[in-house]
Amino acid sequence: MTDELLIGLVSISDRASSGVYEDQGIPALREWFSAAMASPWRMEHRLIPDERAVIEQTLIELADTAGCHLVMTTGGTGPAPRDVTPEATLAVAHKVLPGFGEQMRQVSLKYVPTAILSRQVGVVRGKTLILNLPGQPKAIKETLDGIFAAVPYCIDLIGGPYVETNEAVIKAFRPKSAIRPK
Amino acid sequence: MTDELLIGLVSISDRASSGVYEDQGIPALREWFSAAMASPWRMEHRLIPDERAVIEQTLIELADTAGCHLVMTTGGTGPAPRDVTPEATLAVAHKVLPGFGEQMRQVSLKYVPTAILSRQVGVVRGKTLILNLPGQPKAIKETLDGIFAAVPYCIDLIGGPYVETNEAVIKAFRPKSAIRPK
Amino acid sequence: MTDELLIGLVSISDRASSGVYEDQGIPALREWFSAAMASPWRMEHRLIPDERAVIEQTLIELADTAGCHLVMTTGGTGPAPRDVTPEATLAVAHKVLPGFGEQMRQVSLKYVPTAILSRQVGVVRGKTLILNLPGQPKAIKETLDGIFAAVPYCIDLIGGPYVETNEAVIKAFRPKSAIRPK
Repeated sequence: MTDELLIGLVSISDRASSGVYEDQGIPALREWFSAAMASPWRMEHRLIPDERAVIEQTLIELADTAGCHLVMTTGGTGPAPRDVTPEATLAVAHKVLPGFGEQMRQVSLKYVPTAILSRQVGVVRGKTLILNLPGQPKAIKETLDGIFAAVPYCIDLIGGPYVETNEAVIKAFRPKSAIRPK
Repeated sequence: MTDELLIGLVSISDRASSGVYEDQGIPALREWFSAAMASPWRMEHRLIPDERAVIEQTLIELADTAGCHLVMTTGGTGPAPRDVTPEATLAVAHKVLPGFGEQMRQVSLKYVPTAILSRQVGVVRGKTLILNLPGQPKAIKETLDGIFAAVPYCIDLIGGPYVETNEAVIKAFRPKSAIRPK
Repeated sequence: MTDELLIGLVSISDRASSGVYEDQGIPALREWFSAAMASPWRMEHRLIPDERAVIEQTLIELADTAGCHLVMTTGGTGPAPRDVTPEATLAVAHKVLPGFGEQMRQVSLKYVPTAILSRQVGVVRGKTLILNLPGQPKAIKETLDGIFAAVPYCIDLIGGPYVETNEAVIKAFRPKSAIRPK
């Protein structure tokens, strides 16, 4: 039996959190995971403004209290003054995984040259992997398609449940020695 | 009417600043911008030695006092002991944009394998985007050709003037919602 | 006459250093360098556990006391709690060369999508270049094949001996002005 993967989603947007417009990041993420996951999972979400202290507090709560194995943020990663998601994420990190930021930008660069303006990071806090995703539904899907193959093995390595995926959507990669027989 | 873009150029070289040889970075940059820009611009330049305190002071002066929207350095980004441009740039940064360094190295790697030795960074200080460019005219042109498409939108996001380019040289990219009608 | 290149190898592994299994990194590195080097070289090695303080102390000893021009670590760069090689390497660094980490991940990504989980870095400490390599022999060879072309010129720039390679294995790249006549 496989333990349930607990996923935390944090939509970071002044406008969405104040009700000016509807958040699009969380529905896009929910749809992607519904199609991609083949082992049990559950999702919690939060909708917060672009305030660094609030972001840090929310990430800590989802990791340490709620016990999420994977937390994904959407929004707030650009160069504008209110974009502080990466700073908040780095502030709560125990380990930085620079390959996630690099590869998320490389993936997005295939679609738009302004992908280099994104400051997304991937970090580990305790037993939680935290990834900054873009804010737009289309870019969220492109990014997950481009990097999620490495996420299940990362979750193995930090002590989370054994995640299995629907290979028609995304094929998880693990070294042979880490693959569990079905 | 579009406001004028104020560009600061900083050539960082012990030998050029002491008159041992002629700086080649600033003429190369002036030539590239003359061909590429379609909206009003003006350029200031400085020629300074590889001294970290002098570089920091010059970047701060160009950003905060002169009010430059875009500052570009040339030189001093390698692994040699006197190469301290990235350290000085990071020391005056409010936000780091790792995608610029990554992509500048990726672009240069198409030409020389030693591009991985460059430690170039891109940062934001207040309303100023600061980019470390290589020192050689050929490499400066290759780098600008490879990353400048994202610069006008970055300047929009940090509160600078709406920059328009000569599309025969470089086509600026903006999301549809950010494009102003002519 | 060319001075001898002094290479330090550090195999970082709890299991290998306690004798639970045989270290495979150092034999793989010795084999690669035997084939690749065309100028004089000598190799020292250390086998240590995944303890940050021990790693830092070993890197400092190899750089400052033994006078190695090039130090390579293997192992300990992933997201698991005991993986602390990059933190130890950054802690003893005088200069970080982000291009090495980026390019080592790009190279490994051609083989496995989990390459983005590696947190490898390249740094300079005094006159020593320190590179974190993967732990598996196959991945070590792939990485060196992908990045070593830039290493001899880097060693020139930080004051080490002029390294020549066997071009059938790896062709060192230097700008024309840095190439010494045979």
